[in-house]
Formats: sequence, C-alpha cells, structure tokens
Amino acid sequence: MSDRLRQSRFAKSFGLATPIALAPMAFATGGELAAACARAGTLALIGGAYGDLEWTSREYTAAEDALGGEPAALAKLGCGFITWRLDEDASALDWVLDRPAKPAAIMLSFGDPTAIAKRITDAAVPLICQIQTIAQLPEAVDAGASVIVAQGGEAGGHGMNALDGRGTFTLVPEIADWLAGHAPDVQLLASGGVADGRGLAAALMLGADGALVGSRLWATRESLAPQAAIAEAVSASGDGSARSKVFDILREKNWPAHFDFRALRNAIHREWEGRIEELAADPAAGVANYKEGVAAGDYSRAHVTVGESTGLIRENASAADVIAGIDEQARRLLS
Amino acid sequence: MSDRLRQSRFAKSFGLATPIALAPMAFATGGELAAACARAGTLALIGGAYGDLEWTSREYTAAEDALGGEPAALAKLGCGFITWRLDEDASALDWVLDRPAKPAAIMLSFGDPTAIAKRITDAAVPLICQIQTIAQLPEAVDAGASVIVAQGGEAGGHGMNALDGRGTFTLVPEIADWLAGHAPDVQLLASGGVADGRGLAAALMLGADGALVGSRLWATRESLAPQAAIAEAVSASGDGSARSKVFDILREKNWPAHFDFRALRNAIHREWEGRIEELAADPAAGVANYKEGVAAGDYSRAHVTVGESTGLIRENASAADVIAGIDEQARRLLS
Repeated sequence: MSDRLRQSRFAKSFGLATPIALAPMAFATGGELAAACARAGTLALIGGAYGDLEWTSREYTAAEDALGGEPAALAKLGCGFITWRLDEDASALDWVLDRPAKPAAIMLSFGDPTAIAKRITDAAVPLICQIQTIAQLPEAVDAGASVIVAQGGEAGGHGMNALDGRGTFTLVPEIADWLAGHAPDVQLLASGGVADGRGLAAALMLGADGALVGSRLWATRESLAPQAAIAEAVSASGDGSARSKVFDILREKNWPAHFDFRALRNAIHREWEGRIEELAADPAAGVANYKEGVAAGDYSRAHVTVGESTGLIRENASAADVIAGIDEQARRLLS
Repeated sequence: MSDRLRQSRFAKSFGLATPIALAPMAFATGGELAAACARAGTLALIGGAYGDLEWTSREYTAAEDALGGEPAALAKLGCGFITWRLDEDASALDWVLDRPAKPAAIMLSFGDPTAIAKRITDAAVPLICQIQTIAQLPEAVDAGASVIVAQGGEAGGHGMNALDGRGTFTLVPEIADWLAGHAPDVQLLASGGVADGRGLAAALMLGADGALVGSRLWATRESLAPQAAIAEAVSASGDGSARSKVFDILREKNWPAHFDFRALRNAIHREWEGRIEELAADPAAGVANYKEGVAAGDYSRAHVTVGESTGLIRENASAADVIAGIDEQARRLLS
C-alpha cells in the first residue's frame, strides 16, 4: 500500500491523515463541516470569506467547541478570507488570529496579499495563498506564503474569468516548476476539479503536494449549503455549470473586474449570460427576480455554487465518507 | 519499473511504445512530424484538418515514403479531419481510406460525426472522436468510435468556447465513468494541456488510457509550424494564451458558433478580444492588419497556435526527444 499520501510534505507539515484541505467556501464551510473534516484528518478552513465578524466568530467557535476534547483535530482548524475584503475590514481575521488555540493556517484568495499577509506571518501562522495565474505567484511567495493553492477555472464560486484564467491541468505543473526553481520549501495544492481519488492522484502527478477540495465537500450533510441546492448539484452533469459575472451582478457584489463566478447554469444564468453589459447597466429587474428565487428556494433563479466537478458528485454524503473515499481511491491508484 | 504505460489498453491495441497520440494539427502535423512520431512509437495522425486533398495527400505520402522500410512504424500512421468540413468535401478522407496500407486510425473533431463516420467504420478503420463536453459523448459512441479524445479548453487551436466548454481535469474522469457504464470497450485519451510526463501520468490517474499531445509536438523541429512562431511559444508563460473568436474572424474561417480558438494572446488579439461583435460586423481593417502580420512573420499580428501548456514548453526539440522525455518522466512518476 502506497504511503505517498500520508508521507506527502503537506500531510506531514500539517499533521494530516491525507493531503487534503477543505476549501473555505463562503456561506457553506461552517463549524460543523470544518469540525467533520478536521476530525477526518484534513486541514479544515472555515469560510471566513467576506470577513463578517459575527458569522466567522460564530462558525469558528462552533468548530472549536465541537473539537474541544480532540486536540489533534483542533490543531487542523484554520480559516480563509477574500483578500480584497480584508483591505476594507480585517476584524474577523484579527479575531481568528487572537484565538487561544492558534489557527493551523490562514488562507487568502483574490487580491494582492502583500498588505494583509504581514499580520498573519507576524503571528507565526502559516499563510496559504490561492492564485489563478503564474503572474500572481511571485507576490504570493514574497508575501510569505507557506502554501500556494493553484486554482483552475473548473472551480466553483469565484475564480479568474475565462479569458485571463487557467485550467488546473496546466497551472499546477507550471507553478510547481517555478517553485522548484525559486522557493522549493513552499508547498503547492491543486484546486478546481478535485472531487475524488482520481483527482487527488492526478494532482500529485502534476507536481502538487495535495489538493484543496471545494464542491465535493460543499455537497455534504454537514455543509451550510441548502440541501435542496445540493440536490440540484447531485443531479447535474459537469457540462451544467458556467463561469460569468451574472451572479455577482445579481447578488450586488462589488468584485474586482478580473474575477467572476462559476455556478450551475440555470435559467436565470442563461437569461443574462449573453447580455452581461446590459445587466450591469440596469440590474434592477434581474436582481428582483433573483431575490424572489432565493426567497422561494427556486434554483432556476437562485445560484447553486458548484464547479465542473458537479458531474462527479452523485450523492450527498457525510464529509467523513467523502474524505475516506477520496483517500482510498487515490491510495489504490498510486500503489 | 512500471509498465503501466506500455501495458495500457491504448498502447496495446495500437501496438505503441507509449500511450501517446500525435494530434492532427492543421498546417503543423505534416509528413515529417508524423513519421518521427510513428518511429518513436506513438500513434501519428497527419493534420488533414480542413480536408484539403492536395495538402493531405502530399503530407500523408511523405510520411508513407519516409516509413517505407519500417512496417511497424508505418502501421502507426493515421489522419485527422475537422468533421463539419468533411460534410462539405470528404475527398481527402476517401483518399486516405483508399491507401494500400490501411490507416491506423481516422480522427474526427468538431461536429456531429454520425454521417461521415460510416465511411470509416465500413472500411474497418478505427474511428477516434474528439469531444469537448459530456453531451457530445453518446453520439460519438453511437457513431462507432473506438477511442474518445476528451479535449479540455486548455488545448491550443480549436475547441469549445469557454462558456460551454470544460477543463481537462474534470472532463476526463466524467467521460471515463460514462464509458465504464455504457461502453467499456471504448478507450479514452486526455487532450488539452498534456505536454510532459506529469500530464501523461495525471491523464492515466484521471481514468484515461493515454493522451493526445498537440502543442508540445507542435513545438518541434519536424513541425510545419514556422520556427519563429515556435520561438514565441517557447518564451511565453502559460498565462500568455487565450481562447476567443478573434483569429477565426481574422482568418475568415467560417466555424460553427460554439467553437473558438486558443493561441498566444498577442497584440492583435488584445486589440479585438473585448470587441468581438464589432470585429465580426466589420472585419476588413483587422483582416488586412492580420494578413500583413502573416506576410511579414510578425507574431504581434500573426497567430501562434499553442495552448496553455506553452508555459511548459521551454525548448524547440526533436519529436523523438520530446516523446522519450514524456515517456520517461511518466514512467518514473508511476513507478
């Protein structure tokens, strides 16, 4: 039996049973999901996301409380934030950094990490930076990242727009080569499309030390995602998601220009995807329709935040079963 | 030493030394490159592409002549075509099917293969169908494909547009699962981003039987691509390519709506990428500028047809060295 997984640099340095990190998904990765993933031996990053102090402190504390009697699992708990939001309000980051039990890691995504990273590295907390292009790599390493997450456009939720972005399959080995030449101690996780043991094994072949898993763990019983949204993802083919500005406009989120959002390509997405400029110029009717959809739990109008790996997700399972399944399949493939 | 490569279904069924197919790249995969790749033990598909009889017969015959004294290598020679073009003129296909030495395989890409496939399967020549989405899979299998090529959006040249298309990392395992359930004898190759042994090993982990390699073999001494264009690709980062309709409009190619084209994102691409509708409505000035660029060998205006793996291509080498390097690296990773 191969121990390439447990002996990977990422698993060893964070004390993990398998080289997987739970993605810090906004409004989905709460305390219950993070606690389940930490207990299953992965790095578990609470979805601090937009940096709401009340939400982050509640969910982070819930995970701490759940893991109170399990110090080995508690040591795997961390948090992730949207970088450009922390430039506006970093109170949730400061709250996490002040916890009596130091977070295992803080992950920053989407924006230049230089300014905010210093608070994290000064606290001697491992910094994880998620990037979408080679161009973003030097500034992430210079900011002090211990781990780079290479996020391909396959990923659900926010990412780089298609014109500027990359696929996981080429981004990972190109970053691995740069790190080998410039910063060999910095580790690398693949992100975007890793939903089973095949994906984890492929990530290692491409030069990563492990994988960050989003969509597959979003679709679990412990996730804060609505169970009806998960049911939509379970029944979708991988062709059924799309990346665009549609849902950021409908949700009235003020994201920087180069980022957009992958979700199921439902009726409201199809209605607007060819008319982005029109929607941005006059969003009122679309926003009202979207909000009605959210209120009604109508997923032809509300967003279902999954990536292309939705086609590999065929059941809503417990996080522990998902992680065990990924680990076992990868182990078999690598042996 | 692992023999997962040589013992793969794809290598065994086509008598290959390693489970690699040379992509039939328009205007690049001529007789010299195909002969070199066949000699190196891969399936070698002449770039019949748009189905020009004169070009195809010349390059196919050149490969046959080069391999005249090497029956084992000649048995690895085949040809690839653009499906929707054959619906207009299939004379080059018919010419290849009538060769005294039967082609090893015919590959069809871009369009419904149903009508034209019958000529190939009736001739008892193995049919390879390249697809970009799960939705295209049943018709390819029903048309009689022995091998499916799963092409992700990372690929250079033509592919599915970003909104409708998929990344290699999720498309391969999802197709593998469908084939396992519906057509287990049909083989699967990964395409789009495979440029080294890491990519080949990852393709196998994701469930493929091998890989179709384009860009990395485009950038070889035997390629018909201009050596100055190859030099541009060698010096580019993987961030430096982009997928859009720009070059199809500038080249006055009448491609079906859902397909577009990845190439280096040079000055002329950046000039038009945000104004596709404007360019399509009034292309004359852009076309003239592009044609001047082609005539002058000015790659700020002429297209350089490579995929995202351009960032993994760091030298112009011989095809034999490229293939040996991929095989050795994959073998080491899988052992």
